Amino acid sequence: MATELEKALNQVIEVYHKYSLVHGNPHALSKSDLKKLITTECPQYTKKKTATTWFKQLDINEDGAVNFEEFLHLVVKMGLRVHAESHRHDQH
Amino acid sequence: MATELEKALNQVIEVYHKYSLVHGNPHALSKSDLKKLITTECPQYTKKKTATTWFKQLDINEDGAVNFEEFLHLVVKMGLRVHAESHRHDQH
Repeated sequence: MATELEKALNQVIEVYHKYSLVHGNPHALSKSDLKKLITTECPQYTKKKTATTWFKQLDINEDGAVNFEEFLHLVVKMGLRVHAESHRHDQH
Repeated sequence: MATELEKALNQVIEVYHKYSLVHGNPHALSKSDLKKLITTECPQYTKKKTATTWFKQLDINEDGAVNFEEFLHLVVKMGLRVHAESHRHDQH
């Protein structure tokens, strides 16, 4: 049975594939796939930059697509923001 | 309402706090907290190294605790493994 952390990671993977499979390649987000993903999944965290800027930043190996590993860079950035938000009203 | 990606990230944050709050500090996993976390949440992905080795590797700023940002390094490593596993039997 999957642990809580595995379930969370499977959900991250599902989100990636939901958009990467639009064009049939499970390992590649095109620029339009990435645009759909960020405007649907994390608009408030990504709206300060255009989809083109995000794509250039995430496509580290410059092969014209964002693979899962590259996508995780966005996930980490978002994770830090969501985590910071969750503590905004804490006394800590 | 939270998106699918936000829900997944909230779950990752919940897992971190579940173990960090054992000793009352929401921003710090001690070595024993980390040991509990990896043996409970991801034993098959972390068993090749001891908890001490993981702790040294993750405590990048060497302050004697693993903060959320440092924890995300483990999450990324695990994410890559879980993702690779999910494609092991694919034709792709």
